[in-house]
Amino acid sequence: MDFRAFHPPLRTLMGPGPSDVPPRILEALGRPTIGHLDPAFIELMDDVKRLLQYLMQTENALTMPISAPGSAGMEACFVNLVEPGDKVIVCQNGVFGGRMKENVERCGGVAVMVQDPWGSAIDPQKLEDALLANPDAKVVAFVHAETSTGAQSDAATLAELARRHDCLTIVDTVTSLGGTPVRVDEWQLDAVYSGTQKCLSCVPGIAPVTFSERAQHRIKNRTHKVQSWFLDMNLIMGYWGQGAKRAYHHTAPVNAMYALHEACLMVHEEGLENAWARHRRNHVALRAGLEAMGIAFIVDEAHRLPQLNAVRIPDGVDDAAVRRRLLQEHHLEIGAGLGDLAGKVWRIGLMGYSSRIENITGCLGALDGVLADMGAPVAAGAALPAAEKVLAAA
Amino acid sequence: MDFRAFHPPLRTLMGPGPSDVPPRILEALGRPTIGHLDPAFIELMDDVKRLLQYLMQTENALTMPISAPGSAGMEACFVNLVEPGDKVIVCQNGVFGGRMKENVERCGGVAVMVQDPWGSAIDPQKLEDALLANPDAKVVAFVHAETSTGAQSDAATLAELARRHDCLTIVDTVTSLGGTPVRVDEWQLDAVYSGTQKCLSCVPGIAPVTFSERAQHRIKNRTHKVQSWFLDMNLIMGYWGQGAKRAYHHTAPVNAMYALHEACLMVHEEGLENAWARHRRNHVALRAGLEAMGIAFIVDEAHRLPQLNAVRIPDGVDDAAVRRRLLQEHHLEIGAGLGDLAGKVWRIGLMGYSSRIENITGCLGALDGVLADMGAPVAAGAALPAAEKVLAAA
Repeated sequence: MDFRAFHPPLRTLMGPGPSDVPPRILEALGRPTIGHLDPAFIELMDDVKRLLQYLMQTENALTMPISAPGSAGMEACFVNLVEPGDKVIVCQNGVFGGRMKENVERCGGVAVMVQDPWGSAIDPQKLEDALLANPDAKVVAFVHAETSTGAQSDAATLAELARRHDCLTIVDTVTSLGGTPVRVDEWQLDAVYSGTQKCLSCVPGIAPVTFSERAQHRIKNRTHKVQSWFLDMNLIMGYWGQGAKRAYHHTAPVNAMYALHEACLMVHEEGLENAWARHRRNHVALRAGLEAMGIAFIVDEAHRLPQLNAVRIPDGVDDAAVRRRLLQEHHLEIGAGLGDLAGKVWRIGLMGYSSRIENITGCLGALDGVLADMGAPVAAGAALPAAEKVLAAA
Repeated sequence: MDFRAFHPPLRTLMGPGPSDVPPRILEALGRPTIGHLDPAFIELMDDVKRLLQYLMQTENALTMPISAPGSAGMEACFVNLVEPGDKVIVCQNGVFGGRMKENVERCGGVAVMVQDPWGSAIDPQKLEDALLANPDAKVVAFVHAETSTGAQSDAATLAELARRHDCLTIVDTVTSLGGTPVRVDEWQLDAVYSGTQKCLSCVPGIAPVTFSERAQHRIKNRTHKVQSWFLDMNLIMGYWGQGAKRAYHHTAPVNAMYALHEACLMVHEEGLENAWARHRRNHVALRAGLEAMGIAFIVDEAHRLPQLNAVRIPDGVDDAAVRRRLLQEHHLEIGAGLGDLAGKVWRIGLMGYSSRIENITGCLGALDGVLADMGAPVAAGAALPAAEKVLAAA
């Protein structure tokens, strides 16, 4: 067998995640490993918790990173809050709502689906109807920022409806956290999970989560044990809890925590509001360029995520061929469509460290060149001046 | 709030893991992140699979890393192979056998416990008795190398008994893989999980797993869906499967895979047999030093893991004070006892890159100095010459 060291190609990551990881975070990631019970690591854990509280705008004591990707963060929320037989209303407007349904059912719960078109925000009226029709529902679950479509829903309103009907909420903020406002306490969300590889621009593999007092109460008073030992918050709390005394639960991904700490630090230094404003500003410039080319967004403006731009692939254009050329010639990754949108849309991420002016011009330039060369029905040469105009005015 | 960059202290890691991560692996870890569906990453995944097949001595097609720590690797084996009502015989001779019981029960299975004293190997006769008494058992689960005690069991014999009674086996090789022989195909093990932060000296957070054809058949023919969406091998196969076409399941921890690849490469370069011999040789030297001081092992020689030396704390010695001084003065981490052995033993790891001669002398020297200074009943000054004698003869 012949094996060689792996030296990754240098890419610009403008898909739905991972986003570009800044050198500062990569450098932190590669610092020497220490033990997961080392007093120095315990201090780091405390800092990470406080930084995540800031990022999620919450004072929840139970705020911490799960030692696995966002999908496991989702599962952590469901396995801890849903018991066999529990009815859960799931609002679906994209791929990840469907994954929530899977989670409910695998917990032995009953999922009541509330469907909205992919690319639309979740309709609060439909949720209210479902709550009225299902007075025995215990949990409402929805995706704040659908990574598959680039649509954002009104989490505050949805959570208020759930609360009025005595339901806890499980909210996916994988793509929103750090890019657009996520106000866990103000919106009174109960169980919230996110990812590190989107607007935090950290390496993938960790899932920040937070649980309200109400959610904690439910977890502590369950009838059945949590079906996952690895994700049982009752046990994880012993390791991630307060004070110097920590019980061993699992071996934390020590180096990934260095990186997450540094990523949170960067958002803290920039300031959340400034980070949100940057994502918004850069979206407007990218949008100007794309629209000048004649490329249309699939989400209406009011519900569009600035950090994830889902656009319709121009007629007659070979989706895979364009993405392949962007990757091979320009070392640029943009996202394909997912699920029902496969082959129909591209998802262009401006998330975290990827949300930079040079990425906007690089992406528009590459897309313009490749599409024009392939004879696509776009206004060649129009994108960059349009984007530049917006940038100059900003 | 005041936050600062985290610069970890430089430690020598001689506990039960994580072990020292060599600079080569840290450097690989910090390389630029690329997408988890990038063709270059797909190639890396294929390499990682083939390297893990070599490390685990198997041709199982279903060999891959789980994107989470060893505990999740354990859970992946149980949730995929155990269905509600299934009877599972669990051989316990330490902490991790107890965790297996938890896993069985949380899957809705029935655990039949076969107990052996902590520090002993698993007694095959007891397993055979349990198999005879429970002809309806479907799975036998045991720990090959108990991280809590440093004892190794005879996996080949235990697996043969299980097979003779038509049971699949789930085997924990977290602490053995890369340190002592793990021959998945020769021993005909069915579901095997490990960790990266022990004898592979990779960063913690990833769990290599492998499933035999028999195990795959069981997984594909389950009556109930796997209760974990994140750990459902039927779904994970779509991403880690063969060929260029990969379906998105979750976002892989890209950088951790760079590190795992490099760690596997290092074992491949050294050669598995050479790595095993190095672990054995260094254990003999450490043992000579410890025994010269008057410190005794808790596991009899025949079942002792060379990579994890569990020794009795000398009478009257303050466990925590010694470990604190080793850490603070000598920047040396050794492991405390776990579970029933807390306060009674130390666990001194010589795993992976930590299994180096300079670590043996450093550890013996520090232990000798601290214990003598604290007036412990040990033969001060005897350890280093004894170890040196063994090293010189080797």
